Amino acid sequence: MTVLAKSSAQLSSEPVRSLYEQLCTRVKDVSYLQGVAGLLHWDQEVMMPSKAGDVRAKQLSAIAGLIHEAATSPALGSILEELQNRKVSGDLAKELNNYELANVRLASKAYKEATVLPSEHVKENAALDSKAVAAWAEVRKESDFSKFAPFLEDQVRIVRQRVTYKLKGGVCEEARKINEKARTSLGLKESDECYKGYYQALLNDYETGFKDEHLQALFSDLKKSLVPLIAKIRAKNFQHDNSFIQGEWDVKKQAEFSHRIAKEIGFDTEAGRLDVSTHPFTGGAHPTDVRMTTRYTADYFQEGISGTIHETGHSLYEQGRNLDYDGLPVSQALSLGIHESQSLLWERMVGLSEPFWTYVLPLLKEQFQEPSHENLQSITPHQFYNAFNRVEPGFIRIEADEVTYPMHIILRYEIEKALVEGDITVAEVPRVWNAKMKEYLDLEVKEDRLGCLQDTHWAVGLIGYFPTYTLGSIYAVQIFNAAKQAIPDLDEHLVKGEFHVLKKWLNENIHRQGSLKESGDDLIRELTGKPLDSNLYVQYLTDKYTKIYDL
Amino acid sequence: MTVLAKSSAQLSSEPVRSLYEQLCTRVKDVSYLQGVAGLLHWDQEVMMPSKAGDVRAKQLSAIAGLIHEAATSPALGSILEELQNRKVSGDLAKELNNYELANVRLASKAYKEATVLPSEHVKENAALDSKAVAAWAEVRKESDFSKFAPFLEDQVRIVRQRVTYKLKGGVCEEARKINEKARTSLGLKESDECYKGYYQALLNDYETGFKDEHLQALFSDLKKSLVPLIAKIRAKNFQHDNSFIQGEWDVKKQAEFSHRIAKEIGFDTEAGRLDVSTHPFTGGAHPTDVRMTTRYTADYFQEGISGTIHETGHSLYEQGRNLDYDGLPVSQALSLGIHESQSLLWERMVGLSEPFWTYVLPLLKEQFQEPSHENLQSITPHQFYNAFNRVEPGFIRIEADEVTYPMHIILRYEIEKALVEGDITVAEVPRVWNAKMKEYLDLEVKEDRLGCLQDTHWAVGLIGYFPTYTLGSIYAVQIFNAAKQAIPDLDEHLVKGEFHVLKKWLNENIHRQGSLKESGDDLIRELTGKPLDSNLYVQYLTDKYTKIYDL
Repeated sequence: MTVLAKSSAQLSSEPVRSLYEQLCTRVKDVSYLQGVAGLLHWDQEVMMPSKAGDVRAKQLSAIAGLIHEAATSPALGSILEELQNRKVSGDLAKELNNYELANVRLASKAYKEATVLPSEHVKENAALDSKAVAAWAEVRKESDFSKFAPFLEDQVRIVRQRVTYKLKGGVCEEARKINEKARTSLGLKESDECYKGYYQALLNDYETGFKDEHLQALFSDLKKSLVPLIAKIRAKNFQHDNSFIQGEWDVKKQAEFSHRIAKEIGFDTEAGRLDVSTHPFTGGAHPTDVRMTTRYTADYFQEGISGTIHETGHSLYEQGRNLDYDGLPVSQALSLGIHESQSLLWERMVGLSEPFWTYVLPLLKEQFQEPSHENLQSITPHQFYNAFNRVEPGFIRIEADEVTYPMHIILRYEIEKALVEGDITVAEVPRVWNAKMKEYLDLEVKEDRLGCLQDTHWAVGLIGYFPTYTLGSIYAVQIFNAAKQAIPDLDEHLVKGEFHVLKKWLNENIHRQGSLKESGDDLIRELTGKPLDSNLYVQYLTDKYTKIYDL
Repeated sequence: MTVLAKSSAQLSSEPVRSLYEQLCTRVKDVSYLQGVAGLLHWDQEVMMPSKAGDVRAKQLSAIAGLIHEAATSPALGSILEELQNRKVSGDLAKELNNYELANVRLASKAYKEATVLPSEHVKENAALDSKAVAAWAEVRKESDFSKFAPFLEDQVRIVRQRVTYKLKGGVCEEARKINEKARTSLGLKESDECYKGYYQALLNDYETGFKDEHLQALFSDLKKSLVPLIAKIRAKNFQHDNSFIQGEWDVKKQAEFSHRIAKEIGFDTEAGRLDVSTHPFTGGAHPTDVRMTTRYTADYFQEGISGTIHETGHSLYEQGRNLDYDGLPVSQALSLGIHESQSLLWERMVGLSEPFWTYVLPLLKEQFQEPSHENLQSITPHQFYNAFNRVEPGFIRIEADEVTYPMHIILRYEIEKALVEGDITVAEVPRVWNAKMKEYLDLEVKEDRLGCLQDTHWAVGLIGYFPTYTLGSIYAVQIFNAAKQAIPDLDEHLVKGEFHVLKKWLNENIHRQGSLKESGDDLIRELTGKPLDSNLYVQYLTDKYTKIYDL
């Protein structure tokens, strides 16, 4: 950050390589500060004493200010501008390799995104977030959506404003095109309000380069297949015995077990830590310093181990980043959906599979030998597998199984898109929510607390984020299928606990790829030769649960 | 850090109050970043996975760069300059209270100190430190000082250079005066080398405002009294039985015990943590976020509990800082010596006292009931006190007791001062060291490893630092005496475990005073009506050990 700015004239006489290196220095400086912020966040959730909350907020805001300053510095802008000139002249592609070109592309994009928003907007946004999330926490207790409505109105307003700034700043071309088309077909003037295409821009805040059109098609297909599958399972009115995973599980022993499994899967404890926090997450400061957390509940064994495997999946992605481009954007995770694919692949495709439990169940029996878990000792991996894969429609998204989970997401996607683009009003949210819950999961929502007030996302303006959860699970299946094709004896490896075989494949094909591609769709197409396809996910669920529930 | 700089003309028309507030904003921003650096250091020692060392160094250097940038910003300089104008005009004293005036004084001093060194010097210094410390770690194993000598030469050279910059920059008037006087009396020209007075400047890097002349007198008195006292104890050739604190002490139970005692003494666990690290320290991010560490050794019980009490003393100082001036220099610890006085007061005056163990011994017996500690159960507080206060001259400073410790410091002080001021050469260090060890502690040093190579301080250029340890213990006795005068029944409170009485007195008389005074000497004079007096320390040791050793 102490490098002096050069004039455009000076820059125009420098070789591409030198410009690129100046870019890297500045971008890396930002990445170190982001790492510091990551560590402060982790510490806040895991280690920080309670009275330090106020000062931590100030420290985080000081660091955020410095990151913003460095990420929007005119000197960085000049370098990027000159690199853009060299791109136009064709020099760039001659001098830089694909990873380096991606760094230039991604740094330009990040710079545009950081500079396009006026600082008053950013401040107003932050202030609203903290007010709205406090209000939401209170209102949820009372279960009264109408009291939260004004805050959601504000969030919708400010989120639209953000998109307007972005479209004007040329940040999201896809959204601009959709908006323009709508305006033309509706015969609107430039001063008329029109929010069509705005969701496309929001989606891309979390899922880079992904087209809303494709998302809509995926979700529509999913809905068509999953609603009947869920109904079929429900109609069976049958559940496998899972009494042997009920009861009290010593939390300390759970933690030991989770640490062991995370290590066996391939979590590098010399480049990361596993601790406990109220809300599990994976964060940290760097690929060599990944901090993941989980939580253990004495009377809910499945939560601790599944949560740990989930976060281990995220951690392997972070630890597997390409250190040849350390601190540079091409080494970063491609998107939230791809990140989630890595956690879900391990949590579900592996951690809910019979081969996995064939290896792990004996370890579990060894760890829990006390009389209270006596009935565990005679259980077979197949029985365990059936017990662990229970489908049961419920109101709460975060408690949902892999079959019903997508319906929670589709419902939110449909509502938030309609809200932002002006097809429904905030006041209509509870009614629409409850109608969709009835249609998709056949459940009657009686309280907003269990309905449209359950998640914190909208309170903090995270609109466009929810789809990444289900994109993650669709990616996960397609990636796992590709892995199975590449490693025909994968199941046998899992049965023997040889997780490194799968980890290595993911390291090469996903983790080290970082942000080389422009979207998850592109990555999947490159990897599998096909676009992302929800039918593979439906197929996976249908095959699996047809057997489990004897449909 | 996003506040724009104003011109001198603009500033000159602003009221003092507004200038002061602008100063505070900038100084607080620096203090948040210093807090962040503190947390990163703590994490590095306590939590960080091993592979993260490289990136942590980069993160720390990025933060250090930002701190330096903010602490030397011309905008800050302009504000301080204008405040200096107002001081001259007499406005400052009219508008600001004593704490605020101290903030202006301290901020000016810090700004001068931060701007007086050219950045090439700072870089060269950092590079030398890391080379020299690596070399020292290697050379110590071989126990060959001659291989370390070139690095120490370099450190002496660079440390002199630093002082020269400071004297030229008007940072240490006291040192400049001494140097000038020496030059005059020696008839030297300006271009002639002369390092007289340089030690004064180095001492003040760690012990603000303290005069080397006074230090020399204190140490000279100490030497006169302690050498015979130590010889007398040695001649007795007697030790109390301490077999009941020997043997193996379960580390987990030690940790529980240490946590309990730290809390009982008054450590606020909602504003700090106690963890384990290889080298115990107290650090952290803020008075509401104090991180202290200790270490437990199974076969050395005394280390864990004494170390914990020591760090608790440091922590109480940090947690007791004046939050009315949060983030401002007047709330900071006055000096290293005063900081050490707080740790030593609790470790020695309290933690090595009979009243303390009268209260604590029953808790210890309760904690260690296993058969291997059976002989502990019948021990009286008096027996325990005698066993815990063993005097035994040894080669290693960090293992020394309170009677012999000062001799280790005086020896180092005499050598480092002579080195810097040119009275001995680096090559002479081992010979001088060994002669002094013989004279002060009657020990023959056979290996540099156990002699002049034992400490890391000189390798990282910490010259002028050692005296603060012993200043701390002299301060501690004088402060404790004042506390006993103010609280005549202090011993009875300690016997009942009512540590809060002493803590409250220290909070008011030391901790909240922060850096209001200009030196530890001033603070002591204000508190006790007398200058710092090593005779009180000698008196304390003589009384105590005359009884223990029946001299």
